[in-house]
Amino acid sequence: MTQTLDIVGLSGSLRRASYNSALLRAAAALAPEGLTIDIVDWSDLPVYNGDLETNGLPAPAEALRGRIRRADGLLIATPEYNYGVPGPLKNAIDWVSRPPDHPFAGKPLGIMGGGGGFGTARGQLQVRQTMAALNCSTMNKPEVYVSNIWDKFDDAGQLTDDALRTALTGFLTAFAAWCRRLKG
Amino acid sequence: MTQTLDIVGLSGSLRRASYNSALLRAAAALAPEGLTIDIVDWSDLPVYNGDLETNGLPAPAEALRGRIRRADGLLIATPEYNYGVPGPLKNAIDWVSRPPDHPFAGKPLGIMGGGGGFGTARGQLQVRQTMAALNCSTMNKPEVYVSNIWDKFDDAGQLTDDALRTALTGFLTAFAAWCRRLKG
Amino acid sequence: MTQTLDIVGLSGSLRRASYNSALLRAAAALAPEGLTIDIVDWSDLPVYNGDLETNGLPAPAEALRGRIRRADGLLIATPEYNYGVPGPLKNAIDWVSRPPDHPFAGKPLGIMGGGGGFGTARGQLQVRQTMAALNCSTMNKPEVYVSNIWDKFDDAGQLTDDALRTALTGFLTAFAAWCRRLKG
Amino acid sequence: MTQTLDIVGLSGSLRRASYNSALLRAAAALAPEGLTIDIVDWSDLPVYNGDLETNGLPAPAEALRGRIRRADGLLIATPEYNYGVPGPLKNAIDWVSRPPDHPFAGKPLGIMGGGGGFGTARGQLQVRQTMAALNCSTMNKPEVYVSNIWDKFDDAGQLTDDALRTALTGFLTAFAAWCRRLKG
Repeated sequence: MTQTLDIVGLSGSLRRASYNSALLRAAAALAPEGLTIDIVDWSDLPVYNGDLETNGLPAPAEALRGRIRRADGLLIATPEYNYGVPGPLKNAIDWVSRPPDHPFAGKPLGIMGGGGGFGTARGQLQVRQTMAALNCSTMNKPEVYVSNIWDKFDDAGQLTDDALRTALTGFLTAFAAWCRRLKG
Repeated sequence: MTQTLDIVGLSGSLRRASYNSALLRAAAALAPEGLTIDIVDWSDLPVYNGDLETNGLPAPAEALRGRIRRADGLLIATPEYNYGVPGPLKNAIDWVSRPPDHPFAGKPLGIMGGGGGFGTARGQLQVRQTMAALNCSTMNKPEVYVSNIWDKFDDAGQLTDDALRTALTGFLTAFAAWCRRLKG
Repeated sequence: MTQTLDIVGLSGSLRRASYNSALLRAAAALAPEGLTIDIVDWSDLPVYNGDLETNGLPAPAEALRGRIRRADGLLIATPEYNYGVPGPLKNAIDWVSRPPDHPFAGKPLGIMGGGGGFGTARGQLQVRQTMAALNCSTMNKPEVYVSNIWDKFDDAGQLTDDALRTALTGFLTAFAAWCRRLKG
Repeated sequence: MTQTLDIVGLSGSLRRASYNSALLRAAAALAPEGLTIDIVDWSDLPVYNGDLETNGLPAPAEALRGRIRRADGLLIATPEYNYGVPGPLKNAIDWVSRPPDHPFAGKPLGIMGGGGGFGTARGQLQVRQTMAALNCSTMNKPEVYVSNIWDKFDDAGQLTDDALRTALTGFLTAFAAWCRRLKG
């Protein structure tokens, strides 16, 4: 029997009504059998400052590291800010990356994102670049770039777009296979 | 008579003993006549969250925006975190970038950085990319990539490396000319 | 009296029916008074190989370098290949960049591009990165990303899209001002 | 019994005395049991032009595609040109990438490079970005960035640097494991 894949979901936005958080919730709801997505709140992380880690990492950073360490993989859904990774998301990644034993190494990763016309294409490239530095194994295909994401969800944050639902389902099926392939 | 150029200096690191902050202080001390560098502390910025701006930007963000608006140019000295821009610095940039009237547009910008073997080459690329998105006019040459920056300063944070002193002086002279060229 | 700006136009595609070449021709036709765009053919450049330059650069490379050296600025219109700069365009840039005295340094540059859904957003980033390395002064704003460029031109390669015509006109007006600003 | 991994080696430089070709030859000589590296010459590829493929791809492009299709993985060793991927290498990749059935998809890939002070760090990032677009599975760690590569080989192109020999050996061992892991 195959073990269920425990995936940590990280939204690149802290805004309560974030469309990328809604995208992640839609993914969690559409997850295929054998894969669960636990969306983790990282809003209590401070801005990274090396002086805050002289007596060990702050509790929220340790908690996030521990949660990721136990996971079988990661799923990030992120907006693009100023042609790049959102500062807050990079800040969270930087906290989790602290030596000597960061938990990203070897983890399968899926990246999605939604925003304006270009669907976070540039932001996802930066996330991918940083996560390769941290030795996450990012799935290449399929990709999910949601253009004009605000047209795809209703006011309650429910996914209303069939094409995106199909795309998410395909992405998650491929991601489950990617996670299992890397587990060997 | 030429007016003095008022340059805002931003360090990419909040750590008190940050080498990039030391690099910025060294630059301020070496600034040529007609250019002053005011190193601005942005440590009181929260992690960006759109929900924090429903009643206007938080006071620290407004203060930083106002200071940059009054400046003739910007000088960033930054480490590289995980092959990219430090999350905290990107977070600060994202705060300053908020519409409708962000103060980066048209400002001359110099980027420097110091770290390990590659001297923040990858991190500077991401900063440059984002600042082009924000319509800062970044000087191309010369560049300052400080490899093994910890060897270039003493325990008191004083610059002890003559080659770097010469490089900084050349950088600042060119940057003053770049700022004046763009002012027209 | 203001001198006419002599701009060299480079298409990122060698295909005869290239949409980016058509975009460049449309720009040339729409150029404001005081700016001319001379679209230069670089199809005779070989694939770069250092062994070909032992007795000086090949004639087509020298010719392109000479033409760019005489120009007041550059305008590139390029597709995106595989999330990056087209190999052929990068090859041409690499030829022109050869030391000791490449002609890009200090030249004002405008970048445009057209392709599929994301309008060459990723390709333009790589062109911008390389041209900063070569000390071209690339205009930041406005930008021209033409999504689904095949819908904007007729079979004869004539621009048929009014919104793009307006965008090109605005781009060119800003580019003329950018060139004059940098000339000082 | 484990099958031997058939790896295609591609140098990013066409120069006969290329240091990156020497790096690739050194890797081929150091390859662990069960992995062979066949360095493929792509110097006969023309500059990419869509008009050249109206009657199928040119023979050298088809040959390279076929060779890669049969391989178990790829190993690229490349210089950095102007903060990016060399135009000639990108040109080769673009030829191989042509639809409908390019052979990169799913192939394990290792990237190495050598050059000046930063060891091709920026060039490798662009190669990685493009190869992710083409669905190659690039190994993250370890990495090989050879700074001042001209100091590591003798005039006959023989590797003379023990630290680099050790690094290459470690890289190749990890790459063999990466290829086997992805084969499942």
